[in-house]
Amino acid sequence: MSEKPSIPKGTRDFGPAQMAKRQFILDNIKKVFQKYGFQPLETPAMENLTTLTGKYGDEGDQLLFKILDSGEFYEKFLEIARDQTFESKSKFIDGLSQCMRNICSEALMELVGDQARDFYSVRNLIQGEKSNERLLKGLAVSSSDSNLILEFVKKESLLIALDITQYFAEHFVDGSNYILKNQQYFPDFASRAISSYTKILDSYLLEKFLMSLKSKTLAPEISEKGLRYDLTVPFARYVVMNRHEITFPFKRYQIQPVWRADRPQKGRYREFYQCDADVVGTNSLICEADIVLMIKEVFNSLRIEDYTIKINHRAILSGLAELTGTESESSLFVAIDKLDKIGEEKVKEELRLRGFENKGIDAVFSILNFEGTTQQKIDFLIERFSTSDKGNKGISDFREVLNLLKQYGDLQDHVEFDISLARGLSYYTGCIFEVKINNVAIGSVSGGGRYDNLTGVFGLPDVSGVGISFGVDRLYDAMEELKCFPEETQISSKIMIAHFDESTFNYSLGVAHQLRKNGIATEVYPDIAKLKKQLEYANKKMIPFVLVIGSEEQKTGLLSLKDMKKGEQQQISITDIIKLMVVS
Amino acid sequence: MSEKPSIPKGTRDFGPAQMAKRQFILDNIKKVFQKYGFQPLETPAMENLTTLTGKYGDEGDQLLFKILDSGEFYEKFLEIARDQTFESKSKFIDGLSQCMRNICSEALMELVGDQARDFYSVRNLIQGEKSNERLLKGLAVSSSDSNLILEFVKKESLLIALDITQYFAEHFVDGSNYILKNQQYFPDFASRAISSYTKILDSYLLEKFLMSLKSKTLAPEISEKGLRYDLTVPFARYVVMNRHEITFPFKRYQIQPVWRADRPQKGRYREFYQCDADVVGTNSLICEADIVLMIKEVFNSLRIEDYTIKINHRAILSGLAELTGTESESSLFVAIDKLDKIGEEKVKEELRLRGFENKGIDAVFSILNFEGTTQQKIDFLIERFSTSDKGNKGISDFREVLNLLKQYGDLQDHVEFDISLARGLSYYTGCIFEVKINNVAIGSVSGGGRYDNLTGVFGLPDVSGVGISFGVDRLYDAMEELKCFPEETQISSKIMIAHFDESTFNYSLGVAHQLRKNGIATEVYPDIAKLKKQLEYANKKMIPFVLVIGSEEQKTGLLSLKDMKKGEQQQISITDIIKLMVVS
Repeated sequence: MSEKPSIPKGTRDFGPAQMAKRQFILDNIKKVFQKYGFQPLETPAMENLTTLTGKYGDEGDQLLFKILDSGEFYEKFLEIARDQTFESKSKFIDGLSQCMRNICSEALMELVGDQARDFYSVRNLIQGEKSNERLLKGLAVSSSDSNLILEFVKKESLLIALDITQYFAEHFVDGSNYILKNQQYFPDFASRAISSYTKILDSYLLEKFLMSLKSKTLAPEISEKGLRYDLTVPFARYVVMNRHEITFPFKRYQIQPVWRADRPQKGRYREFYQCDADVVGTNSLICEADIVLMIKEVFNSLRIEDYTIKINHRAILSGLAELTGTESESSLFVAIDKLDKIGEEKVKEELRLRGFENKGIDAVFSILNFEGTTQQKIDFLIERFSTSDKGNKGISDFREVLNLLKQYGDLQDHVEFDISLARGLSYYTGCIFEVKINNVAIGSVSGGGRYDNLTGVFGLPDVSGVGISFGVDRLYDAMEELKCFPEETQISSKIMIAHFDESTFNYSLGVAHQLRKNGIATEVYPDIAKLKKQLEYANKKMIPFVLVIGSEEQKTGLLSLKDMKKGEQQQISITDIIKLMVVS
Repeated sequence: MSEKPSIPKGTRDFGPAQMAKRQFILDNIKKVFQKYGFQPLETPAMENLTTLTGKYGDEGDQLLFKILDSGEFYEKFLEIARDQTFESKSKFIDGLSQCMRNICSEALMELVGDQARDFYSVRNLIQGEKSNERLLKGLAVSSSDSNLILEFVKKESLLIALDITQYFAEHFVDGSNYILKNQQYFPDFASRAISSYTKILDSYLLEKFLMSLKSKTLAPEISEKGLRYDLTVPFARYVVMNRHEITFPFKRYQIQPVWRADRPQKGRYREFYQCDADVVGTNSLICEADIVLMIKEVFNSLRIEDYTIKINHRAILSGLAELTGTESESSLFVAIDKLDKIGEEKVKEELRLRGFENKGIDAVFSILNFEGTTQQKIDFLIERFSTSDKGNKGISDFREVLNLLKQYGDLQDHVEFDISLARGLSYYTGCIFEVKINNVAIGSVSGGGRYDNLTGVFGLPDVSGVGISFGVDRLYDAMEELKCFPEETQISSKIMIAHFDESTFNYSLGVAHQLRKNGIATEVYPDIAKLKKQLEYANKKMIPFVLVIGSEEQKTGLLSLKDMKKGEQQQISITDIIKLMVVS
């Protein structure tokens, strides 16, 4: 009874080698975040769907992983659906009665065929079959809401009409209640009616139930929780929930996995880590300057040298939009955002399709294509934005960030003012950032910006914030390509002790204890085995030193320390080993 | 359009203060794991349900959080259900035809009532209504699988019998295919039959669909992934999947959250962290000794002093079971496991109910109640287990672990040989461990043991392993109660710089840059604000030092450093601050 195990597509295991490298990245980012005064936060993997939905656009909603409620959610749903459909039991009875009438009427039609409407045939039938109660019943039922009785009246067969009417009045005046109580008299009709009605009712409910399953947003009765899609919305949720305890400005960092039901493909996973740092509760542009400095420190600590921090400001883009005279800033932003991918001509085409006029498009591109130093770009924009308040606000913010960097003593290397940087997310309102590693075919590895109303949707308006996010997976891939990982990232024992027999094995334990006491990660090869096998193990696990303890070593206390990388070996006392290890 | 945000019950946010304390626990555990040669592993939060189900018992299966498949899973299900129910379209047609006949037959019975079986009435009816095709059809359909034709034949009404048979042969020989093709001739019957059949079919499928929703194990068509329930099963899955790359013995540690759809209550959460270390691929009892040492190091580093490591061996329990002459070890283990909670009398009662004889029960409790030192317990058991191979194996393993600890130089303090320790999980086969913090009303904070066949279910038999798991949440609660957390766990800036105006603010930036360059976590209060407000912020965030920079300080370069805890203030140069901070 064995199964071949696998993991869900788009997810990954991180074995020791990858873990060490990932840890190297995360530790460095964390260290920088902490150095800039950010404090850690963790939120649950599961959030209420009410928190998540509607925050990432329609596409995002579809990419949420939803968790099935535990328990008998179908019963719960059925109950609610019943309540909604039938306000009371009486309505249910009404419905049942109506349904039964239809069924009976149908049965009657069959019973007498086309003859039913023919007075004479009916009379003949009834006369031929005296007191055919069954037929009478059928006629009565049928006539309850048809013109049958009227027809009989018209055709002067008043007796029959009366017969039927009276029968109906007697037996059906209380609707189906009567039938339900007297099922024995109506075995056929009643049971068929009831079962048919129940079926109709059930399939109506099932239909609704299935509709809710099929619809993009699942009925909350089936799934009320989803997996976190990013760290920003949970952060906003946390801030609002804890606003009375939080000291503002609140600087938090958060390093946790997020989940997206995206189509898995190379470099795109369904579970991946995000590393975010955000400040909320201040408009101060020092936060933007700090972000630039943090990016630099992170890249420096990761040994990535050739990268560019692109900066722009949403208000500058708004200024551009003003120049085109458009009502819809966002369609301009969306189009510009694609410049990198599809090129100038296609972007122009898209803008034309979206109703932008050639004059406006030309104005935009005359700015986007302006080349020069940051200062030249600023001077150029100031001139162009002479009448644009928004544009000027963007320029002035950007200049202030540069000034703060200068006060910090920063040289503004790696920083590029990129007027065409737009960023996808709609909630940005101020400075925006994006970091690209140069000469590596990997998209941006970090991005962020200022937003003015992220917490508004949770009922806390006017809290400005600014944040930065690092993409661990892309950084990992880029660092592999650039060979940035230090060799010693591997997390393993520093020393493995090899031995030859029970006596040296036992002796090894005391040695291991000494080493560990001094903080040196040590393991004793657990089994009595050939030296070759023990060395192989150390080699595969990339343990840098092996201490070989034979009977001679046990006797003298001078142990053989083998440097696995250099292949050198020396006789050395424990005290000296400890000294050596602590230094190395 | 704002919502009041909340988080799912049983989950928690960890704000900066809690994070710091949790980090303190996790870092210490991690450090110890690494010191003993364990390497990190992380597995995805989502596992395939095939990996998870059946591994934690029925109750565990119910506590799995299941993730709804994305996409149109209902259509997928319907397709599969249809395939299963109707192997081919022909079967569908057969079914349709059968259903139609039933409907028609029913209609016929109504049409002629009890008269149908009365040859004369039928003849009269038919004669009275010459070539009543509708009636004929009904009779034909009805007679296809009834004895009606035979009856007509019996009653010598051969003509009618022939009429009917011929009609049937003509129109129904190809079953419902004919009807489907010629619906215009059978508008009533055919459409009713088809719609009725479709309804029956659909409700059958819906029934199945809902059954699968309601059933404990959801149909894999709706949910094929679940959230990780523990770290052990994913570990076993990882080992089997990567067995050709892994260097055995494989020592891994794993610190990740797990999820259980348990009823939330005090101290029990739906998302919580586990910290596991396991070795697989060796029977060496050095692993058990290492576990004891690791537990001690962890508790030492967490400053918890008064705790007990209880050890027992499943084979010793098997020896006990042998003494009772029972066939079912596990019911004995389950009962003994409750000793702590329900007491001796109730356990005895349970054993009696489970068919244990008084003699056996007395034998067990004469052992369980034996008091003495570890050595006395061992001697006592050796005597009692004179004829029990299993019991002796348990004793000998346990003695060997004690011997290895001695070789390590360990004093075996905190260690208690507890014959009544059983542990809930069924997969343990060797030594078992449990750690309790004394004088704190919290259950066990750590537990583990050796298992011989955890990977067997995934197709890799005979891989012995042993592991230990620490419960962070309980450790946290116990440490809060015992006040074990060091004061300086709070992760925050070491220095906040306060300023008075734009000039001193700008000057602050250069100072901050210097401090950060030397690895000192520093933040500049981001806004120009009153000193009181700035100090309040530092105070609330528990930042230990505030550097107050006024115009005088800016001029002289001698800065005012305020020790927030002591309330002292000194004039000091940046160089000296750096020296001071690096030391402190």
